[in-house]
Amino acid sequence: MAGTTTTNTITGNTNPTANLPPLLDLTIDNITPNTIRINSQASDARLKYLMARLVTHLHDFARETRLSSDEWMAALQFLISCGKICSDVRNEFILLSDVLGLSLLVDNINHPTLPGGTEGSVLGPFHTHDAPVLPNGSSMTSDPEGEPMLALCTVKDLKGNALPGVTIDIWETDSSGHYDVQHADRDAPSERCIMKSDDEGRFWFKGIKPVSYPIPHDGPVGKLLERLNRHPWRPAHVHFKFEKDGWDPLVTALYLKGDPYESSDAVFGVKKSLVVELGKVDKATAEAYGVKEGSWLLKRDFVLSTQKETEELRDRLAVQELEKLGLNMKLVDHLPVPELD
Amino acid sequence: MAGTTTTNTITGNTNPTANLPPLLDLTIDNITPNTIRINSQASDARLKYLMARLVTHLHDFARETRLSSDEWMAALQFLISCGKICSDVRNEFILLSDVLGLSLLVDNINHPTLPGGTEGSVLGPFHTHDAPVLPNGSSMTSDPEGEPMLALCTVKDLKGNALPGVTIDIWETDSSGHYDVQHADRDAPSERCIMKSDDEGRFWFKGIKPVSYPIPHDGPVGKLLERLNRHPWRPAHVHFKFEKDGWDPLVTALYLKGDPYESSDAVFGVKKSLVVELGKVDKATAEAYGVKEGSWLLKRDFVLSTQKETEELRDRLAVQELEKLGLNMKLVDHLPVPELD
Repeated sequence: MAGTTTTNTITGNTNPTANLPPLLDLTIDNITPNTIRINSQASDARLKYLMARLVTHLHDFARETRLSSDEWMAALQFLISCGKICSDVRNEFILLSDVLGLSLLVDNINHPTLPGGTEGSVLGPFHTHDAPVLPNGSSMTSDPEGEPMLALCTVKDLKGNALPGVTIDIWETDSSGHYDVQHADRDAPSERCIMKSDDEGRFWFKGIKPVSYPIPHDGPVGKLLERLNRHPWRPAHVHFKFEKDGWDPLVTALYLKGDPYESSDAVFGVKKSLVVELGKVDKATAEAYGVKEGSWLLKRDFVLSTQKETEELRDRLAVQELEKLGLNMKLVDHLPVPELD
Repeated sequence: MAGTTTTNTITGNTNPTANLPPLLDLTIDNITPNTIRINSQASDARLKYLMARLVTHLHDFARETRLSSDEWMAALQFLISCGKICSDVRNEFILLSDVLGLSLLVDNINHPTLPGGTEGSVLGPFHTHDAPVLPNGSSMTSDPEGEPMLALCTVKDLKGNALPGVTIDIWETDSSGHYDVQHADRDAPSERCIMKSDDEGRFWFKGIKPVSYPIPHDGPVGKLLERLNRHPWRPAHVHFKFEKDGWDPLVTALYLKGDPYESSDAVFGVKKSLVVELGKVDKATAEAYGVKEGSWLLKRDFVLSTQKETEELRDRLAVQELEKLGLNMKLVDHLPVPELD
């Protein structure tokens, strides 16, 4: 029995007689405060608060549902399958968070929209970090089957001033409804690029008209949707991610008006203000931008808020929400932690 | 861009105009009822209830903590790491459930103890299905370093009648504090066996005196414990699992009195009624069972309740709890589902 097993060395608080009440005879009724108490040995106040709320909700869930041992085991197996299918190009837990509405919620909490600002939408699991930086006017598509689309956009601040030097990440599926990373034979990024807004806050590129597509549904999240009788489709959209020092990063998307899934997005991303109607490129524009007359035309102004503007709004909403909940909290680094006397 | 990607065929409810309100402009305040509504397309009433409570708690957790995008991503990464480290012989999600007190809670909900019955304890992640079936009196140890221990046990019903023909799964670590499956060179089960109680409800075996040991803490759950300043130790114990048709299966363990971790078990399993003091084997017993005089002696009676007895108690407690919560529920197959008008 010698073998290659690691020795039982330990780290952390190894003192079993630490300043804690005995953990004995734990029951349905006392397990929650006792778990919270033992976790409160953490020195990080924020972690302590997160764990206390997590344990409370997890336990309340089991108590309210009288969770059966079989259901508990099925849930653990589901989480294992999600983990097993994850790879460099697939994140099943983001998908799970998306279809449970958590991603939308977290995005809304972190990036509240100021009056006049562009609303955010879900990031999704298909953003990569290898998109090519392309000059304005470039084509980001390598899909000959796609319907050509010219996009003419601007980025502005809340007062309407042009914002130059904004980094814009843009990505969409090919005409078959797959992101490049979903193709096993991907050798280079495709249907994605990074641009900079020019001195007048403009950026423009050539892509294809987006199509509706189902989120990957051959894994555990797909099986869950099936058991819930939910379809896995997302309406046609193009993703955008805006970044500039001092400005609140904006993750958003533009959705095509009239898409059959416009009001039943599997991941809850659609906002009316983000639904756009495509036009057609006229002769003058075709000549100016080197595209065919009659191609699809996407025109859009995006409006960013500063980091400070967003932070102030986020803090104000956080304080409001915590007051509603009657929790005795303060914000540290813009995040709630328990208020100590 | 052709490649090996699967075609975007779909299953389930593909009708985007199904009888549902439009999913548009979802916010912090309306995402929860809308997610519950779309999930309520499930035909399984129990699944519908589980999802509704899960979504509510998950969203409330994010709202109360104002969960940051970074924390959200860290949580998803944590779940991925847990999934990645799971194998046939390691279940990190059971460990996670154990250290969060969920396993204890689910066990208590599902197997409430009747007056006079033996209390349950956590199953843990080290039960296997390949333990050898051994006749009473056999040795289940192959560890020459362990301190020999003779166990003399009985299984009875609540009225004190002997229970013959009960299948008993028994498992413990070796003297180094590792279960057989934790050794990379495991070629056969060790320190585990399955026995049957005889006509007088007795079963007896030779093992080793259990030792305290840390749960596997070289993975994400270990890192979490470290951040919480919690030690990963379990007090010395032997696991038992009792099964017989018509009787409530009992998963329990016996803990050694005086263990330094007796009242700080990392997975909350210890109950006072399960703490035992070992004796020493006397001359007569040594001769009768073929062990050395002075070996450790474990004596214990276990008491099972019938499936019906436990079910009735579980149902009664479930109804009580749901009434306390003010939920309009009924029990179907002993599990709560919403009461329909």
